[in-house]
Amino acid sequence: MADAETPPLFAYPHRRTVQTRWKDNDVYGHVNNVEYYSFFDTVINEWLIEEGGLNIHSGDTIGVCAESGCRFLAPVAFPEPVVAGLRVEKLGNSSVRYGIGLFREMGEPLATGYFVHVFVGRGDRRPRSIPEQIRKCLGRIEA
Amino acid sequence: MADAETPPLFAYPHRRTVQTRWKDNDVYGHVNNVEYYSFFDTVINEWLIEEGGLNIHSGDTIGVCAESGCRFLAPVAFPEPVVAGLRVEKLGNSSVRYGIGLFREMGEPLATGYFVHVFVGRGDRRPRSIPEQIRKCLGRIEA
Amino acid sequence: MADAETPPLFAYPHRRTVQTRWKDNDVYGHVNNVEYYSFFDTVINEWLIEEGGLNIHSGDTIGVCAESGCRFLAPVAFPEPVVAGLRVEKLGNSSVRYGIGLFREMGEPLATGYFVHVFVGRGDRRPRSIPEQIRKCLGRIEA
Amino acid sequence: MADAETPPLFAYPHRRTVQTRWKDNDVYGHVNNVEYYSFFDTVINEWLIEEGGLNIHSGDTIGVCAESGCRFLAPVAFPEPVVAGLRVEKLGNSSVRYGIGLFREMGEPLATGYFVHVFVGRGDRRPRSIPEQIRKCLGRIEA
Repeated sequence: MADAETPPLFAYPHRRTVQTRWKDNDVYGHVNNVEYYSFFDTVINEWLIEEGGLNIHSGDTIGVCAESGCRFLAPVAFPEPVVAGLRVEKLGNSSVRYGIGLFREMGEPLATGYFVHVFVGRGDRRPRSIPEQIRKCLGRIEA
Repeated sequence: MADAETPPLFAYPHRRTVQTRWKDNDVYGHVNNVEYYSFFDTVINEWLIEEGGLNIHSGDTIGVCAESGCRFLAPVAFPEPVVAGLRVEKLGNSSVRYGIGLFREMGEPLATGYFVHVFVGRGDRRPRSIPEQIRKCLGRIEA
Repeated sequence: MADAETPPLFAYPHRRTVQTRWKDNDVYGHVNNVEYYSFFDTVINEWLIEEGGLNIHSGDTIGVCAESGCRFLAPVAFPEPVVAGLRVEKLGNSSVRYGIGLFREMGEPLATGYFVHVFVGRGDRRPRSIPEQIRKCLGRIEA
Repeated sequence: MADAETPPLFAYPHRRTVQTRWKDNDVYGHVNNVEYYSFFDTVINEWLIEEGGLNIHSGDTIGVCAESGCRFLAPVAFPEPVVAGLRVEKLGNSSVRYGIGLFREMGEPLATGYFVHVFVGRGDRRPRSIPEQIRKCLGRIEA
Protein backbone atom coordinates (compact mmCIF):
# COMPACT_ATOMS: atom_id res chain seq x y z
CA MET A 1 0.00 0.00 0.00
CA ALA A 2 3.04 2.29 -0.28
CA ASP A 3 2.29 5.35 -2.41
CA ALA A 4 3.59 8.82 -3.25
CA GLU A 5 3.27 9.80 0.39
CA THR A 6 5.54 6.99 1.56
CA PRO A 7 9.18 8.08 1.67
CA PRO A 8 11.71 5.28 1.05
CA LEU A 9 14.25 4.30 3.70
CA PHE A 10 17.00 6.45 2.18
CA ALA A 11 14.85 9.54 2.76
CA TYR A 12 15.54 9.16 6.50
CA PRO A 13 19.02 10.38 7.56
CA HIS A 14 19.05 8.28 10.77
CA ARG A 15 18.34 4.55 10.66
CA ARG A 16 18.28 1.99 13.43
CA THR A 17 17.24 -1.64 13.65
CA VAL A 18 14.53 -2.33 16.23
CA GLN A 19 14.10 -5.84 17.65
CA THR A 20 10.60 -7.19 18.04
CA ARG A 21 9.46 -9.12 21.11
CA TRP A 22 7.29 -12.18 21.60
CA LYS A 23 4.44 -10.23 23.12
CA ASP A 24 4.41 -7.62 20.33
CA ASN A 25 2.48 -10.16 18.29
CA ASP A 26 -1.22 -9.93 18.97
CA VAL A 27 -3.99 -12.46 18.58
CA TYR A 28 -3.95 -11.99 14.79
CA GLY A 29 -0.30 -13.08 14.66
CA HIS A 30 1.39 -9.77 13.86
CA VAL A 31 2.98 -6.91 15.73
CA ASN A 32 0.15 -4.91 17.28
CA ASN A 33 -0.45 -1.40 15.94
CA VAL A 34 0.26 0.05 19.40
CA GLU A 35 3.84 -1.23 19.39
CA TYR A 36 4.66 0.78 16.27
CA TYR A 37 4.28 3.89 18.39
CA SER A 38 6.65 2.36 20.93
CA PHE A 39 9.19 1.97 18.12
CA PHE A 40 8.67 5.66 17.33
CA ASP A 41 9.45 6.99 20.80
CA THR A 42 12.29 4.51 21.23
CA VAL A 43 14.15 5.63 18.12
CA ILE A 44 13.46 9.30 18.84
CA ASN A 45 14.52 9.28 22.48
CA GLU A 46 17.59 7.17 21.83
CA TRP A 47 18.69 9.77 19.29
CA LEU A 48 18.07 12.61 21.75
CA ILE A 49 19.91 10.83 24.58
CA GLU A 50 22.93 9.62 22.65
CA GLU A 51 23.38 12.52 20.25
CA GLY A 52 21.66 15.41 22.00
CA GLY A 53 22.62 14.76 25.61
CA LEU A 54 18.99 14.57 26.77
CA ASN A 55 19.06 13.59 30.45
CA ILE A 56 15.79 11.74 31.02
CA HIS A 57 16.49 11.23 34.73
CA SER A 58 17.30 14.74 35.92
CA GLY A 59 17.56 17.20 33.03
CA ASP A 60 15.66 20.51 33.37
CA THR A 61 14.07 20.28 29.94
CA ILE A 62 12.23 17.19 28.71
CA GLY A 63 10.30 16.34 25.54
CA VAL A 64 6.63 15.40 25.81
CA CYS A 65 4.47 14.09 22.99
CA ALA A 66 1.87 16.54 21.72
CA GLU A 67 0.64 14.62 18.70
CA SER A 68 1.39 11.48 16.73
CA GLY A 69 -0.04 9.44 13.90
CA CYS A 70 0.66 6.39 11.79
CA ARG A 71 -0.44 4.78 8.55
CA PHE A 72 -0.02 1.00 8.58
CA LEU A 73 1.08 -0.41 5.23
CA ALA A 74 2.02 -4.05 5.81
CA PRO A 75 2.16 -6.50 8.72
CA VAL A 76 5.28 -7.86 10.37
CA ALA A 77 5.69 -10.52 13.05
CA PHE A 78 8.14 -11.38 15.81
CA PRO A 79 10.93 -12.49 15.56
CA GLU A 80 11.51 -10.40 12.44
CA PRO A 81 13.31 -7.12 13.18
CA VAL A 82 12.17 -3.74 11.90
CA VAL A 83 14.31 -0.95 10.49
CA ALA A 84 13.24 2.50 11.69
CA GLY A 85 14.14 5.65 9.76
CA LEU A 86 14.02 9.04 11.48
CA ARG A 87 14.08 12.58 10.16
CA VAL A 88 13.11 16.04 11.35
CA GLU A 89 10.31 17.56 9.29
CA LYS A 90 9.85 20.81 11.19
CA LEU A 91 12.12 22.35 13.78
CA GLY A 92 10.49 25.15 15.80
CA ASN A 93 11.57 27.09 18.86
CA SER A 94 10.16 24.73 21.46
CA SER A 95 8.78 21.91 19.35
CA VAL A 96 9.89 19.49 16.68
CA ARG A 97 7.98 17.31 14.26
CA TYR A 98 9.67 14.03 13.36
CA GLY A 99 8.88 11.77 10.42
CA ILE A 100 9.39 8.07 11.03
CA GLY A 101 9.34 5.22 8.55
CA LEU A 102 9.31 1.55 9.50
CA PHE A 103 10.63 -0.99 6.99
CA ARG A 104 11.55 -4.63 6.63
CA GLU A 105 15.27 -5.21 6.30
CA MET A 106 14.87 -5.67 2.54
CA GLY A 107 13.27 -2.22 2.31
CA GLU A 108 9.55 -2.98 2.12
CA PRO A 109 7.67 -0.18 3.91
CA LEU A 110 5.64 -1.27 6.95
CA ALA A 111 4.39 2.04 8.27
CA THR A 112 4.92 5.75 7.98
CA GLY A 113 4.22 8.11 10.83
CA TYR A 114 4.96 11.35 12.61
CA PHE A 115 5.51 12.47 16.18
CA VAL A 116 5.55 15.98 17.66
CA HIS A 117 7.69 16.68 20.71
CA VAL A 118 7.19 19.82 22.77
CA PHE A 119 10.09 20.62 25.05
CA VAL A 120 8.96 21.70 28.53
CA GLY A 121 10.37 22.30 31.97
CA ARG A 122 10.49 19.11 34.02
CA GLY A 123 8.80 20.80 36.96
CA ASP A 124 6.34 23.28 35.51
CA ARG A 125 5.68 21.58 32.18
CA ARG A 126 5.76 24.98 30.44
CA PRO A 127 7.29 25.23 26.95
CA ARG A 128 11.05 25.87 26.79
CA SER A 129 13.36 26.66 23.92
CA ILE A 130 14.96 23.48 22.65
CA PRO A 131 18.36 23.14 24.39
CA GLU A 132 21.30 23.96 22.09
CA GLN A 133 22.87 20.49 21.97
CA ILE A 134 19.53 18.89 21.16
CA ARG A 135 18.79 21.49 18.48
CA LYS A 136 22.11 20.68 16.85
CA CYS A 137 21.50 16.95 16.71
CA LEU A 138 18.00 17.57 15.35
CA GLY A 139 19.39 19.89 12.68
CA ARG A 140 21.64 17.08 11.47
CA ILE A 141 18.66 14.96 10.46
CA GLU A 142 16.43 17.61 8.92
CA ALA A 143 14.62 16.39 5.81
CA MET B 1 -5.22 22.61 25.35
CA ALA B 2 -8.78 21.61 24.46
CA ASP B 3 -10.16 23.67 21.59
CA ALA B 4 -12.94 23.73 18.99
CA GLU B 5 -11.68 20.43 17.60
CA THR B 6 -12.04 18.65 20.94
CA PRO B 7 -15.47 17.05 21.32
CA PRO B 8 -16.73 16.82 24.92
CA LEU B 9 -17.49 13.46 26.54
CA PHE B 10 -21.20 13.65 25.76
CA ALA B 11 -20.39 13.75 22.04
CA TYR B 12 -19.40 10.08 22.29
CA PRO B 13 -22.38 7.66 22.37
CA HIS B 14 -20.36 4.83 24.00
CA ARG B 15 -18.35 5.46 27.17
CA ARG B 16 -16.23 3.09 29.19
CA THR B 17 -13.85 3.51 32.12
CA VAL B 18 -10.34 2.23 31.46
CA GLN B 19 -8.08 1.32 34.37
CA THR B 20 -4.47 2.41 34.26
CA ARG B 21 -1.58 0.14 35.26
CA TRP B 22 1.62 0.70 37.20
CA LYS B 23 3.81 0.31 34.16
CA ASP B 24 1.75 2.73 32.04
CA ASN B 25 3.59 5.53 33.85
CA ASP B 26 6.86 6.32 32.14
CA VAL B 27 10.02 7.92 33.47
CA TYR B 28 8.37 11.35 33.44
CA GLY B 29 5.68 10.10 35.83
CA HIS B 30 2.66 9.98 33.52
CA VAL B 31 0.93 7.47 31.30
CA ASN B 32 3.12 7.03 28.23
CA ASN B 33 1.74 8.28 24.91
CA VAL B 34 1.89 4.74 23.50
CA GLU B 35 -0.61 3.43 26.04
CA TYR B 36 -3.27 5.86 24.82
CA TYR B 37 -3.37 3.86 21.60
CA SER B 38 -3.78 0.71 23.66
CA PHE B 39 -6.83 2.31 25.28
CA PHE B 40 -8.13 3.02 21.76
CA ASP B 41 -7.99 -0.55 20.50
CA THR B 42 -9.22 -1.91 23.81
CA VAL B 43 -12.41 0.16 23.81
CA ILE B 44 -13.00 -0.46 20.10
CA ASN B 45 -12.49 -4.22 20.16
CA GLU B 46 -14.48 -4.68 23.33
CA TRP B 47 -17.40 -2.93 21.63
CA LEU B 48 -17.03 -5.13 18.52
CA ILE B 49 -16.80 -8.33 20.58
CA GLU B 50 -19.60 -7.66 23.04
CA GLU B 51 -22.03 -5.80 20.80
CA GLY B 52 -21.06 -6.93 17.30
CA GLY B 53 -20.20 -10.57 17.91
CA LEU B 54 -16.66 -10.22 16.58
CA ASN B 55 -14.93 -13.57 17.13
CA ILE B 56 -11.25 -12.71 17.52
CA HIS B 57 -10.21 -16.35 17.88
CA SER B 58 -11.82 -17.98 14.83
CA GLY B 59 -14.09 -15.57 12.96
CA ASP B 60 -13.67 -15.33 9.18
CA THR B 61 -13.54 -11.55 9.14
CA ILE B 62 -11.28 -9.52 11.38
CA GLY B 63 -10.52 -5.82 11.73
CA VAL B 64 -6.98 -4.57 11.19
CA CYS B 65 -5.74 -1.06 11.86
CA ALA B 66 -4.99 0.97 8.73
CA GLU B 67 -4.37 4.33 10.34
CA SER B 68 -4.53 6.06 13.69
CA GLY B 69 -3.61 9.35 15.31
CA CYS B 70 -3.83 11.20 18.60
CA ARG B 71 -3.50 14.71 19.99
CA PHE B 72 -2.37 14.74 23.61
CA LEU B 73 -4.03 17.47 25.67
CA ALA B 74 -3.18 16.80 29.32
CA PRO B 75 -1.22 14.22 31.31
CA VAL B 76 -2.68 11.57 33.60
CA ALA B 77 -0.96 9.12 35.94
CA PHE B 78 -1.61 5.67 37.38
CA PRO B 79 -3.61 4.86 39.48
CA GLU B 80 -6.12 7.39 38.10
CA PRO B 81 -8.61 5.79 35.70
CA VAL B 82 -9.48 7.23 32.29
CA VAL B 83 -12.90 7.53 30.68
CA ALA B 84 -12.90 6.62 27.00
CA GLY B 85 -15.60 7.85 24.63
CA LEU B 86 -16.17 6.10 21.31
CA ARG B 87 -18.10 7.08 18.20
CA VAL B 88 -18.18 6.14 14.55
CA GLU B 89 -17.21 9.02 12.29
CA LYS B 90 -17.36 7.27 8.93
CA LEU B 91 -18.88 3.91 8.12
CA GLY B 92 -17.85 2.52 4.73
CA ASN B 93 -18.34 -0.83 3.04
CA SER B 94 -15.26 -2.53 4.41
CA SER B 95 -13.80 0.12 6.68
CA VAL B 96 -14.80 2.31 9.59
CA ARG B 97 -13.26 5.40 11.12
CA TYR B 98 -13.75 5.77 14.86
CA GLY B 99 -13.32 8.91 16.93
CA ILE B 100 -12.08 8.39 20.47
CA GLY B 101 -11.86 10.85 23.32
CA LEU B 102 -10.05 10.22 26.59
CA PHE B 103 -11.12 12.15 29.67
CA ARG B 104 -10.60 12.35 33.41
CA GLU B 105 -13.62 11.25 35.39
CA MET B 106 -14.53 14.89 36.03
CA GLY B 107 -14.64 15.50 32.27
CA GLU B 108 -11.30 17.17 31.57
CA PRO B 109 -10.13 16.10 28.10
CA LEU B 110 -6.85 14.16 28.03
CA ALA B 111 -6.59 13.23 24.38
CA THR B 112 -8.58 13.06 21.20
CA GLY B 113 -7.85 10.58 18.47
CA TYR B 114 -9.02 8.46 15.61
CA PHE B 115 -8.56 4.89 14.43
CA VAL B 116 -9.42 3.30 11.07
CA HIS B 117 -10.33 -0.39 10.93
CA VAL B 118 -10.34 -2.26 7.65
CA PHE B 119 -12.22 -5.54 7.79
CA VAL B 120 -10.37 -8.36 6.02
CA GLY B 121 -10.45 -12.12 5.65
CA ARG B 122 -8.52 -13.84 8.43
CA GLY B 123 -6.65 -15.99 5.95
CA ASP B 124 -6.13 -13.85 2.85
CA ARG B 125 -6.19 -10.42 4.52
CA ARG B 126 -8.24 -9.08 1.58
CA PRO B 127 -10.96 -6.47 2.29
CA ARG B 128 -14.39 -7.84 3.17
CA SER B 129 -17.74 -6.14 3.61
CA ILE B 130 -18.32 -5.40 7.27
CA PRO B 131 -20.38 -8.31 8.71
CA GLU B 132 -24.01 -7.39 9.30
CA GLN B 133 -24.05 -7.67 13.11
CA ILE B 134 -20.92 -5.54 13.38
CA ARG B 135 -22.34 -2.94 10.99
CA LYS B 136 -25.44 -2.70 13.15
CA CYS B 137 -23.51 -2.11 16.36
CA LEU B 138 -21.34 0.48 14.61
CA GLY B 139 -24.44 2.24 13.28
CA ARG B 140 -25.69 2.65 16.84
CA ILE B 141 -22.75 4.87 17.76
CA GLU B 142 -22.49 6.98 14.62
CA ALA B 143 -21.70 10.61 15.35
CA MET C 1 -4.41 -27.37 37.96
CA ALA C 2 -5.31 -25.79 41.30
CA ASP C 3 -4.00 -27.85 44.23
CA ALA C 4 -3.28 -27.66 47.95
CA GLU C 5 -0.86 -24.80 47.32
CA THR C 6 -3.51 -22.67 45.63
CA PRO C 7 -5.33 -20.45 48.12
CA PRO C 8 -8.93 -19.62 47.20
CA LEU C 9 -10.05 -16.04 46.60
CA PHE C 10 -11.38 -15.60 50.15
CA ALA C 11 -7.86 -16.24 51.49
CA TYR C 12 -6.87 -12.82 50.17
CA PRO C 13 -8.06 -9.90 52.35
CA HIS C 14 -7.83 -7.34 49.51
CA ARG C 15 -9.55 -7.99 46.18
CA ARG C 16 -9.70 -5.86 43.06
CA THR C 17 -10.98 -6.41 39.54
CA VAL C 18 -8.38 -5.88 36.84
CA GLN C 19 -9.45 -5.11 33.28
CA THR C 20 -7.68 -6.85 30.45
CA ARG C 21 -6.61 -5.05 27.27
CA TRP C 22 -6.66 -6.02 23.63
CA LYS C 23 -2.92 -6.36 23.38
CA ASP C 24 -2.66 -8.55 26.50
CA ASN C 25 -3.73 -11.43 24.26
CA ASP C 26 -0.76 -12.98 22.54
CA VAL C 27 -0.51 -15.00 19.35
CA TYR C 28 -1.98 -18.05 21.09
CA GLY C 29 -5.15 -16.12 21.91
CA HIS C 30 -4.76 -15.67 25.67
CA VAL C 31 -3.36 -13.11 28.06
CA ASN C 32 0.43 -13.40 27.85
CA ASN C 33 2.25 -14.68 30.94
CA VAL C 34 4.16 -11.41 31.22
CA GLU C 35 0.99 -9.42 31.79
CA TYR C 36 0.17 -11.42 34.91
CA TYR C 37 3.17 -9.76 36.53
CA SER C 38 1.82 -6.40 35.44
CA PHE C 39 -1.41 -7.24 37.27
CA PHE C 40 0.71 -8.04 40.34
CA ASP C 41 2.50 -4.72 40.55
CA THR C 42 -0.64 -2.83 39.63
CA VAL C 43 -2.70 -4.25 42.51
CA ILE C 44 0.22 -3.92 44.94
CA ASN C 45 1.13 -0.34 44.10
CA GLU C 46 -2.47 0.81 44.00
CA TRP C 47 -2.88 -0.53 47.52
CA LEU C 48 0.29 1.24 48.69
CA ILE C 49 -0.71 4.54 47.05
CA GLU C 50 -4.34 4.64 48.11
CA GLU C 51 -4.07 3.06 51.55
CA GLY C 52 -0.43 3.62 52.51
CA GLY C 53 0.17 7.08 51.12
CA LEU C 54 3.05 5.94 48.90
CA ASN C 55 4.10 8.94 46.83
CA ILE C 56 5.54 7.47 43.64
CA HIS C 57 6.44 10.88 42.22
CA SER C 58 8.44 12.47 45.03
CA GLY C 59 8.37 10.33 48.20
CA ASP C 60 11.73 9.65 49.92
CA THR C 61 11.12 5.93 50.22
CA ILE C 62 10.06 3.74 47.31
CA GLY C 63 9.46 0.03 46.86
CA VAL C 64 11.54 -1.92 44.34
CA CYS C 65 10.97 -5.51 43.29
CA ALA C 66 13.60 -7.96 44.57
CA GLU C 67 11.96 -11.20 43.53
CA SER C 68 8.76 -12.51 42.01
CA GLY C 69 7.28 -15.72 40.71
CA CYS C 70 4.08 -17.15 39.29
CA ARG C 71 2.45 -20.51 38.63
CA PHE C 72 0.01 -20.37 35.73
CA LEU C 73 -3.08 -22.53 36.26
CA ALA C 74 -5.55 -21.66 33.51
CA PRO C 75 -5.72 -19.30 30.53
CA VAL C 76 -7.89 -16.20 30.24
CA ALA C 77 -8.49 -13.89 27.29
CA PHE C 78 -9.41 -10.24 26.71
CA PRO C 79 -12.06 -8.89 27.14
CA GLU C 80 -12.66 -11.03 30.24
CA PRO C 81 -11.68 -9.25 33.46
CA VAL C 82 -9.54 -10.84 36.17
CA VAL C 83 -10.03 -10.65 39.93
CA ALA C 84 -6.78 -10.15 41.84
CA GLY C 85 -6.45 -11.09 45.50
CA LEU C 86 -3.65 -9.62 47.60
CA ARG C 87 -2.25 -10.53 50.99
CA VAL C 88 0.95 -9.97 52.95
CA GLU C 89 2.79 -13.20 53.66
CA LYS C 90 5.85 -11.80 55.43
CA LEU C 91 6.35 -8.31 56.78
CA GLY C 92 9.97 -7.49 57.63
CA ASN C 93 11.75 -4.30 58.61
CA SER C 94 12.51 -3.07 55.12
CA SER C 95 10.88 -5.70 52.95
CA VAL C 96 7.53 -7.34 52.43
CA ARG C 97 6.50 -10.50 50.62
CA TYR C 98 3.05 -10.40 49.04
CA GLY C 99 0.96 -13.34 47.89
CA ILE C 100 -1.25 -12.69 44.87
CA GLY C 101 -3.97 -14.84 43.40
CA LEU C 102 -5.64 -14.23 40.05
CA PHE C 103 -9.12 -15.61 39.46
CA ARG C 104 -12.00 -15.50 37.03
CA GLU C 105 -15.02 -13.67 38.36
CA MET C 106 -16.71 -17.00 39.14
CA GLY C 107 -13.74 -17.95 41.34
CA GLU C 108 -11.73 -20.28 39.10
CA PRO C 109 -8.03 -19.81 39.89
CA LEU C 110 -5.91 -18.54 37.00
CA ALA C 111 -2.56 -18.05 38.68
CA THR C 112 -0.91 -17.83 42.05
CA GLY C 113 2.22 -15.83 42.65
CA TYR C 114 4.39 -13.82 44.99
CA PHE C 115 6.27 -10.55 44.86
CA VAL C 116 8.92 -9.17 47.23
CA HIS C 117 9.24 -5.43 47.69
CA VAL C 118 12.31 -3.91 49.30
CA PHE C 119 11.83 -0.33 50.43
CA VAL C 120 14.78 1.90 49.57
CA GLY C 121 15.75 5.55 49.47
CA ARG C 122 14.75 7.15 46.17
CA GLY C 123 18.19 8.67 45.75
CA ASP C 124 20.65 6.17 47.21
CA ARG C 125 18.59 2.98 46.68
CA ARG C 126 19.73 1.75 50.12
CA PRO C 127 17.23 -0.22 52.28
CA ARG C 128 14.98 1.84 54.53
CA SER C 129 12.55 0.85 57.25
CA ILE C 130 9.06 0.60 55.83
CA PRO C 131 7.34 3.97 56.48
CA GLU C 132 4.79 3.81 59.28
CA GLN C 133 1.64 4.48 57.22
CA ILE C 134 2.64 1.84 54.69
CA ARG C 135 3.44 -0.68 57.42
CA LYS C 136 -0.03 -0.13 58.86
CA CYS C 137 -1.83 -0.74 55.58
CA LEU C 138 0.30 -3.85 54.98
CA GLY C 139 -0.53 -5.13 58.46
CA ARG C 140 -4.21 -4.93 57.62
CA ILE C 141 -3.86 -7.55 54.89
CA GLU C 142 -1.50 -9.99 56.59
CA ALA C 143 -2.38 -13.61 55.89
CA MET D 1 23.67 -8.79 45.04
CA ALA D 2 25.07 -11.62 42.90
CA ASP D 3 25.87 -14.68 45.00
CA ALA D 4 26.61 -18.41 44.70
CA GLU D 5 23.20 -18.95 43.10
CA THR D 6 23.94 -16.49 40.29
CA PRO D 7 25.54 -18.21 37.30
CA PRO D 8 27.89 -16.00 35.26
CA LEU D 9 27.18 -15.26 31.60
CA PHE D 10 29.49 -18.03 30.34
CA ALA D 11 27.30 -20.59 32.14
CA TYR D 12 24.62 -19.96 29.49
CA PRO D 13 25.31 -21.68 26.14
CA HIS D 14 23.04 -19.30 24.16
CA ARG D 15 23.46 -15.55 24.43
CA ARG D 16 21.58 -12.75 22.74
CA THR D 17 21.52 -8.98 23.11
CA VAL D 18 18.09 -7.55 23.90
CA GLN D 19 17.33 -3.91 23.13
CA THR D 20 15.45 -1.89 25.69
CA ARG D 21 12.64 0.53 24.78
CA TRP D 22 11.67 3.94 26.00
CA LYS D 23 8.56 2.73 27.77
CA ASP D 24 10.39 -0.11 29.57
CA ASN D 25 11.56 2.53 32.05
CA ASP D 26 9.03 3.05 34.78
CA VAL D 27 8.39 6.02 37.04
CA TYR D 28 11.48 5.15 39.11
CA GLY D 29 13.67 5.53 36.04
CA HIS D 30 14.62 1.90 35.39
CA VAL D 31 13.36 -1.00 33.34
CA ASN D 32 10.22 -2.28 35.06
CA ASN D 33 10.38 -5.75 36.63
CA VAL D 34 7.59 -6.95 34.33
CA GLU D 35 9.70 -6.35 31.21
CA TYR D 36 12.37 -8.78 32.43
CA TYR D 37 9.82 -11.54 31.90
CA SER D 38 9.21 -10.22 28.40
CA PHE D 39 12.95 -10.59 27.76
CA PHE D 40 12.66 -14.18 28.99
CA ASP D 41 9.94 -15.28 26.60
CA THR D 42 11.49 -13.32 23.75
CA VAL D 43 14.87 -15.07 23.99
CA ILE D 44 13.22 -18.47 24.54
CA ASN D 45 10.75 -18.27 21.68
CA GLU D 46 13.28 -16.84 19.27
CA TRP D 47 15.49 -19.85 19.99
CA LEU D 48 12.59 -22.26 19.46
CA ILE D 49 11.51 -20.56 16.21
CA GLU D 50 14.92 -20.13 14.62
CA GLU D 51 16.63 -23.30 15.83
CA GLY D 52 13.72 -25.64 16.59
CA GLY D 53 11.34 -24.80 13.79
CA LEU D 54 8.52 -23.82 16.15
CA ASN D 55 5.68 -22.51 14.01
CA ILE D 56 3.83 -20.04 16.22
CA HIS D 57 1.19 -19.30 13.58
CA SER D 58 -0.02 -22.76 12.62
CA GLY D 59 2.07 -25.52 14.22
CA ASP D 60 0.20 -28.36 15.96
CA THR D 61 2.26 -28.17 19.12
CA ILE D 62 2.90 -24.95 21.02
CA GLY D 63 4.68 -24.09 24.26
CA VAL D 64 2.72 -22.45 27.08
CA CYS D 65 4.20 -21.05 30.28
CA ALA D 66 3.46 -23.11 33.39
CA GLU D 67 5.69 -21.31 35.85
CA SER D 68 8.30 -18.59 35.99
CA GLY D 69 10.30 -16.62 38.51
CA CYS D 70 12.99 -13.97 38.75
CA ARG D 71 15.43 -12.52 41.27
CA PHE D 72 16.30 -8.91 40.51
CA LEU D 73 19.93 -8.08 41.26
CA ALA D 74 20.61 -4.64 39.80
CA PRO D 75 18.70 -1.98 37.86
CA VAL D 76 19.20 -1.04 34.23
CA ALA D 77 17.67 1.77 32.17
CA PHE D 78 16.78 2.44 28.54
CA PRO D 79 18.65 2.98 26.22
CA GLU D 80 21.19 0.51 27.65
CA PRO D 81 20.88 -2.95 26.08
CA VAL D 82 20.74 -6.18 28.07
CA VAL D 83 22.51 -9.45 27.34
CA ALA D 84 20.33 -12.50 27.92
CA GLY D 85 21.82 -15.94 28.54
CA LEU D 86 19.70 -19.05 28.05
CA ARG D 87 20.19 -22.67 29.07
CA VAL D 88 18.04 -25.75 29.58
CA GLU D 89 18.03 -26.92 33.18
CA LYS D 90 15.60 -29.82 32.88
CA LEU D 91 14.32 -31.48 29.73
CA GLY D 92 11.30 -33.72 30.27
CA ASN D 93 8.94 -35.49 27.91
CA SER D 94 6.47 -32.67 27.43
CA SER D 95 8.04 -29.87 29.44
CA VAL D 96 11.29 -27.98 29.73
CA ARG D 97 12.71 -25.74 32.42
CA TYR D 98 14.94 -22.94 31.16
CA GLY D 99 17.40 -20.89 33.19
CA ILE D 100 17.85 -17.30 32.04
CA GLY D 101 20.41 -14.75 33.15
CA LEU D 102 20.28 -11.05 32.28
CA PHE D 103 23.52 -9.07 32.28
CA ARG D 104 24.97 -5.71 31.34
CA GLU D 105 27.29 -5.88 28.37
CA MET D 106 30.30 -5.73 30.69
CA GLY D 107 29.02 -8.85 32.48
CA GLU D 108 27.38 -7.43 35.61
CA PRO D 109 24.40 -9.65 36.51
CA LEU D 110 21.02 -7.89 36.45
CA ALA D 111 18.66 -10.77 37.12
CA THR D 112 18.49 -14.52 37.20
CA GLY D 113 15.32 -16.42 36.49
CA TYR D 114 13.61 -19.52 35.23
CA PHE D 115 10.71 -20.35 32.95
CA VAL D 116 8.87 -23.65 32.46
CA HIS D 117 7.30 -24.42 29.09
CA VAL D 118 4.75 -27.19 28.70
CA PHE D 119 4.20 -28.27 25.12
CA VAL D 120 0.53 -28.77 24.28
CA GLY D 121 -1.74 -29.28 21.31
CA ARG D 122 -2.79 -25.96 19.77
CA GLY D 123 -6.42 -27.02 19.75
CA ASP D 124 -6.95 -29.14 22.85
CA ARG D 125 -4.20 -27.67 25.04
CA ARG D 126 -3.34 -31.20 26.26
CA PRO D 127 0.33 -32.08 26.89
CA ARG D 128 2.29 -33.40 23.92
CA SER D 129 5.74 -34.89 23.63
CA ILE D 130 8.21 -32.21 22.66
CA PRO D 131 8.59 -32.33 18.84
CA GLU D 132 11.88 -33.90 17.73
CA GLN D 133 13.44 -30.81 16.13
CA ILE D 134 12.67 -28.73 19.18
CA ARG D 135 14.03 -31.39 21.52
CA LYS D 136 17.27 -31.38 19.56
CA CYS D 137 17.77 -27.64 19.77
CA LEU D 138 16.98 -27.72 23.49
CA GLY D 139 19.49 -30.52 24.00
CA ARG D 140 22.18 -28.31 22.50
CA ILE D 141 21.87 -25.79 25.32
CA GLU D 142 21.51 -28.13 28.28
CA ALA D 143 23.39 -26.93 31.36
